[in-house]
Amino acid sequence: MQSLYRDVVVWDAESESARRCDVRTEDARIVAVEPAGSFRYGPAYEGGGKTAMLPGFVNAHGHAAMTLLRGLGEDLPLMEWLEQRIWPVERRLDGEMIYTGTELAMMDMLSTGTTCFADMYDFMDKVAEAALAAGMRAGLCRGIVLAKPSDMEKKLSDGLRLAESYNGAGGLISVQLGPHAPYTVPFAQMKEIAAAAAERELGIQLHWLETRNEWSIAGTPGGLSPEEYLEASGLTDVNHLLLAHCVWIDKEKLPFYARPNITAAHNPKSNWKLGSGSAPVAAMLEAKVSVAIGTDGASSNNRLDMWDEMRFAALAQKGSNMNPTLLSARDVFRMATVAGARALGFENTGLIKEGYTADFMLVDLDRPHYVGWDMDNLPGYIVYAGSSSDVKTTVAAGRVLYHNGEFLTIDRSKAMAKAEAARKILTA
Amino acid sequence: MQSLYRDVVVWDAESESARRCDVRTEDARIVAVEPAGSFRYGPAYEGGGKTAMLPGFVNAHGHAAMTLLRGLGEDLPLMEWLEQRIWPVERRLDGEMIYTGTELAMMDMLSTGTTCFADMYDFMDKVAEAALAAGMRAGLCRGIVLAKPSDMEKKLSDGLRLAESYNGAGGLISVQLGPHAPYTVPFAQMKEIAAAAAERELGIQLHWLETRNEWSIAGTPGGLSPEEYLEASGLTDVNHLLLAHCVWIDKEKLPFYARPNITAAHNPKSNWKLGSGSAPVAAMLEAKVSVAIGTDGASSNNRLDMWDEMRFAALAQKGSNMNPTLLSARDVFRMATVAGARALGFENTGLIKEGYTADFMLVDLDRPHYVGWDMDNLPGYIVYAGSSSDVKTTVAAGRVLYHNGEFLTIDRSKAMAKAEAARKILTA
Repeated sequence: MQSLYRDVVVWDAESESARRCDVRTEDARIVAVEPAGSFRYGPAYEGGGKTAMLPGFVNAHGHAAMTLLRGLGEDLPLMEWLEQRIWPVERRLDGEMIYTGTELAMMDMLSTGTTCFADMYDFMDKVAEAALAAGMRAGLCRGIVLAKPSDMEKKLSDGLRLAESYNGAGGLISVQLGPHAPYTVPFAQMKEIAAAAAERELGIQLHWLETRNEWSIAGTPGGLSPEEYLEASGLTDVNHLLLAHCVWIDKEKLPFYARPNITAAHNPKSNWKLGSGSAPVAAMLEAKVSVAIGTDGASSNNRLDMWDEMRFAALAQKGSNMNPTLLSARDVFRMATVAGARALGFENTGLIKEGYTADFMLVDLDRPHYVGWDMDNLPGYIVYAGSSSDVKTTVAAGRVLYHNGEFLTIDRSKAMAKAEAARKILTA
Repeated sequence: MQSLYRDVVVWDAESESARRCDVRTEDARIVAVEPAGSFRYGPAYEGGGKTAMLPGFVNAHGHAAMTLLRGLGEDLPLMEWLEQRIWPVERRLDGEMIYTGTELAMMDMLSTGTTCFADMYDFMDKVAEAALAAGMRAGLCRGIVLAKPSDMEKKLSDGLRLAESYNGAGGLISVQLGPHAPYTVPFAQMKEIAAAAAERELGIQLHWLETRNEWSIAGTPGGLSPEEYLEASGLTDVNHLLLAHCVWIDKEKLPFYARPNITAAHNPKSNWKLGSGSAPVAAMLEAKVSVAIGTDGASSNNRLDMWDEMRFAALAQKGSNMNPTLLSARDVFRMATVAGARALGFENTGLIKEGYTADFMLVDLDRPHYVGWDMDNLPGYIVYAGSSSDVKTTVAAGRVLYHNGEFLTIDRSKAMAKAEAARKILTA
């Protein structure tokens, strides 16, 4: 199937400046990005020079089905919130609920321009099915938390089966292994998971130094420093290692993380809302560490809105370092798009470019808050003045999934009714 | 004129919990807030128990017409941005442009649920006319910057004439005096302005300790500490003193500011974007200082969106203090509504309550990200999960100003065309 988007304002994190283009897609790919006026005939989406085409966001860390746990206890101390509000409810989740909660999350994401999401949770076959049904791109892993080492066999085999069944499915899904964190997976099992990933050329998603005390809670595993641990466990040998949070990395150690196969997934809003701290993102960029952006789960954010997340990321670094030049609009847009895609193993996703996947959003620039935009200042308008409500259309793998408030692959009222019902059971 | 809003979910910062109500307005006032089902007959807005009625936001600090300067230089050092990008353009603004820029700002504000705004700028009669034409409530002052003391006479008389002409106009406008800041108004003139305000029972809007070095740049006026200065100048004697920013108040001195006639206007996004620092808001609340929230001008934010601002305010305090219990949803909602209204001299604005002004927004709760809301957890959903795109209708003084994407008192396309034209002249 071919589609034509005529006279749209194309910008991505690697464009020098924005430009008016005609963009042709064929099936799941972008096949031509030419100056506006190049393709004069045939039916097309007409951008009229007032609609931006931007790469779809890649939400690089989250737990989609936690939408069903949103708002369960706000403004509480961390452990009270987890122990009394979240964990008891989470234990009741079943596969059907995970499907429902993922659908709910995808409506949030599609309506705000996200085309791809990372997910670490349970019943991940249901998440894969939900993503495929909706047509979203996703990097998925079975979260491995080991209350006791003997839980390993089932959870690792769940994760490997997920990879066998879904890695590459529909051209949309990549599968990683998902050891939860060093404080929930003993060192011996972490090594085993890393070896299994390396052997199968799978990536890994891992929570990393989210809270101040977690390294000591983990008993400084093996007596190693965090960086020694990454090497000794074999985690640095996998082809993509996505480290979620990275709040408490020692700044001196940042050069260690500047490797092509490591990406930090920054979750500014979740880290702040939970009072976990602030990741040293400006220093990471300076040290050439690859950084992506994620929302984390809806119970600690509570929006799955990457516009929000980009703005928080940029302003937090400028503010806390008292330096307005840090994290430019281009920097955070790169983090929110192509950096996340690469971390999830999608090599040709996240730019508006011939040969790249047709994953993009169309953004209405004909609105009061965009007065004054031009081809050079557009990034600043997008990151600082824009919002998710400017998204008119979201396209993943060439398919229109959201348009003018309507979801084309999710039955909104049915999905909301199922979610309401699940929520009632969960909180009964 | 009477209006009825049937079965809306009413919540404000002083409500114990949300409740389904029928709300009647008569002209500019709320005349009844009764349990849903109380008023069965007659035409009404039907909320169906899925539409929240919340007080309209009060944007407690800003410079509305700076919408025309939005995006002029991003991610630059403060002085380079001011000297090379902002000031040269600002000098070209004329009265007609100020009207146009204010209209542009009001479209941003009305579409995001703001019904009242504070403004300190030039050509303020134009701002008053624009607000009256649009039907918005506003607290206005002529900004007084004295490049030389002899500028005082004209600028103060501008401010006093504004008060004579517009204080109380249309039941919508309050006028304050607007000495810009201690570093732009010498101490003798500050005393004169404070005395003029006290004599006429006018409030004052003032920039206060926004940047780290400004007290020393001002030559520590009169050799006084900031708090000694406020008392010695007579500023503490005016009936409402609105102190914008308050980033660098000494925490030890916070009890000084806990007075019924003083309000701090917190501008978290502007302070961070410019790298000015973080106001100690959690400590202010603990010291019982009244705090409101503002966006500041669109050149340093760049949204005039109080949903954004509330969320930044809450998460910044939780994050930077590493304490998720600070600044509850109710706290920031109070700051964003009734606290700002009182600071601008609007005593019966900012709550959904009989006798209060009919200034409110209607918010669509029938959206995926609200699944799970109930009468007790609604504040958290509004502050952490909601966004300005959930605003269906904005009403000020009983008049519908925005509904389903349409502005009822501003000609959107004409206003945008005028703004585009002004922007071209300004940046030519």
